[in-house]
Amino acid sequence: MDKSKRTEISALGEFKLIDRICASFQTEQKNTVKGAGDDAAVIDAGNKYLLLSNDLLLEGVHFDLTYFPLQHLGYKSVVVGISDILAMNGTPRQILIALGISSRFSVEMIDSFYEGVHAACKDYHVDMVGGDTSASVNGLTISITATGDVDKDKIVYRSGANVNDLVCLSGDLGAAYMGIHLLEREKRACNGQPNPQPKFEGYEYILRRELKPDARIDIIERLAQNNIVPTSMIDISDGLASEALHLCKASNKGIRIYLNRLPIAKQTYAMAEELHSDPVVAALNGGDDYELLFTVPLSKQAEVFAMGIDVIGHVTAPDSGAMLVTPDGQEIELRAQGWK
Amino acid sequence: MDKSKRTEISALGEFKLIDRICASFQTEQKNTVKGAGDDAAVIDAGNKYLLLSNDLLLEGVHFDLTYFPLQHLGYKSVVVGISDILAMNGTPRQILIALGISSRFSVEMIDSFYEGVHAACKDYHVDMVGGDTSASVNGLTISITATGDVDKDKIVYRSGANVNDLVCLSGDLGAAYMGIHLLEREKRACNGQPNPQPKFEGYEYILRRELKPDARIDIIERLAQNNIVPTSMIDISDGLASEALHLCKASNKGIRIYLNRLPIAKQTYAMAEELHSDPVVAALNGGDDYELLFTVPLSKQAEVFAMGIDVIGHVTAPDSGAMLVTPDGQEIELRAQGWK
Repeated sequence: MDKSKRTEISALGEFKLIDRICASFQTEQKNTVKGAGDDAAVIDAGNKYLLLSNDLLLEGVHFDLTYFPLQHLGYKSVVVGISDILAMNGTPRQILIALGISSRFSVEMIDSFYEGVHAACKDYHVDMVGGDTSASVNGLTISITATGDVDKDKIVYRSGANVNDLVCLSGDLGAAYMGIHLLEREKRACNGQPNPQPKFEGYEYILRRELKPDARIDIIERLAQNNIVPTSMIDISDGLASEALHLCKASNKGIRIYLNRLPIAKQTYAMAEELHSDPVVAALNGGDDYELLFTVPLSKQAEVFAMGIDVIGHVTAPDSGAMLVTPDGQEIELRAQGWK
Repeated sequence: MDKSKRTEISALGEFKLIDRICASFQTEQKNTVKGAGDDAAVIDAGNKYLLLSNDLLLEGVHFDLTYFPLQHLGYKSVVVGISDILAMNGTPRQILIALGISSRFSVEMIDSFYEGVHAACKDYHVDMVGGDTSASVNGLTISITATGDVDKDKIVYRSGANVNDLVCLSGDLGAAYMGIHLLEREKRACNGQPNPQPKFEGYEYILRRELKPDARIDIIERLAQNNIVPTSMIDISDGLASEALHLCKASNKGIRIYLNRLPIAKQTYAMAEELHSDPVVAALNGGDDYELLFTVPLSKQAEVFAMGIDVIGHVTAPDSGAMLVTPDGQEIELRAQGWK
């Protein structure tokens, strides 16, 4: 590429940028099983596969400390890290956290952050094994490395979906996104007031989904108990639409997702109504859900229903594309967003 | 600790902050061998130990893109990551890089960065296995996770130094620090000029030490060829003084470092003279050297000399403290800096 040129990243988009980067790297270490391009890297560790992921959370992009308690942020940082491990059907084991800290932060604030990390480590039985810090010019920077492992015959990539597989989803979508919108509204309403009284009553669920999300380790455990190994899986950090497209692309398949099967919580609907926005857009593109999207053979239908898992669609041949099906049977092309 | 209090991080200092964080975490996973508190975390991977490190490089703190070419920055990011693995006597295997990118950056700039990553991966035979990106409000944020492995009986911690061990150092010190000072001087001199002509002649070595440092994989390989397993080791990222103190603290020992044995390059001396600064201060506290500081038993003296390694001091009993010895025999207490 011509180096005197300037191509805006927005012209390419996040996902094509990542594809470019990943495509340029070949691997040569014999224990590298899977490089960039899935939820976690896969390294051969003898009896098992070791899983590794790396995430960045940046102040002003991923969180706003005006309303995000540091303790919750610590907790969520761990959840974000281990969610990638779960998406490979793995068991999370360790995390490493590196912080960039500006002079705005006190020792007590950093303590609060790590109290949250501590609570999450306890809840998910992961060990915090690296704690680097450095100075930062602007705000708080959080880097999370997560490890995990998985039996070699149980690993699940994004790429294994087969035609006619069921598309399954843990939990509901769009709640965290509506939670942020509520928090932003109350931030504006309270701005400059001497005794701010944000109105959160009745919206505890969507706030919790944004501020203290769960990593769905329970789903991974129950799939194992039911002897179900999904054919493909991904966690929903950027929104259902882009994650479903990642599965399609990696598996070289099409998909049909039925709009009237998207699980959306009552509070998500109510908040969307209050804000005159569309709950389906929140479900498709909101992100920050940390639910698991996975595919299983049609023969597993009864078992996944018994687990209380929603089936939201099915896998199709690649040439029929990735489509949303409306209640009246119309098909709309699924589109991804990602950051620009 | 009282949450209404505000203790400045500067009042505690970087190292005590890290100690606080690390001390608060217990490990429970049975494959966690060593948690926070060394250059890398250690995980039992069956036949070998797996090593893991996580570093952050932040624009405005760790690099200034006015003079730091993005390609070199990509290269250096890999070096920073694998240097931690080498410091455990490990062989680097994989890296994951997550970038936070502001709108100032074009696709071509990101390509340049990854060209440098690519070159370093090739030079050090490591695989790039994770390539996440996200938006950033302020500048460029680089998170590097590095992996490696080591035979279980060959791992080297910070904690194994014994009384009378020789304190060894690869390469020379303070060059990168003087390189930054030169780059900063020329940045000021060229500021606002239509055709800036920075004066770098005669200072190629110190510039290279800052802009394209080496990770001392050659030292780890030669130690192995000579059947030398150091008793303790650390890489010099923050300056000799603080790293030597880390070895002392982890090993519960004292140290004597002889000032007239500190290896300082000619160009480092020359630049220090030009800038009326002290090359010894650069050597002790400059940092960014990425050399290895390690201890070996006295019986290995001939072998390390034959390798061209400098012996700069020896390990003492803990009650005699960590001291610098001047050419006339005076002892000065060794003090660390770190960021505040």
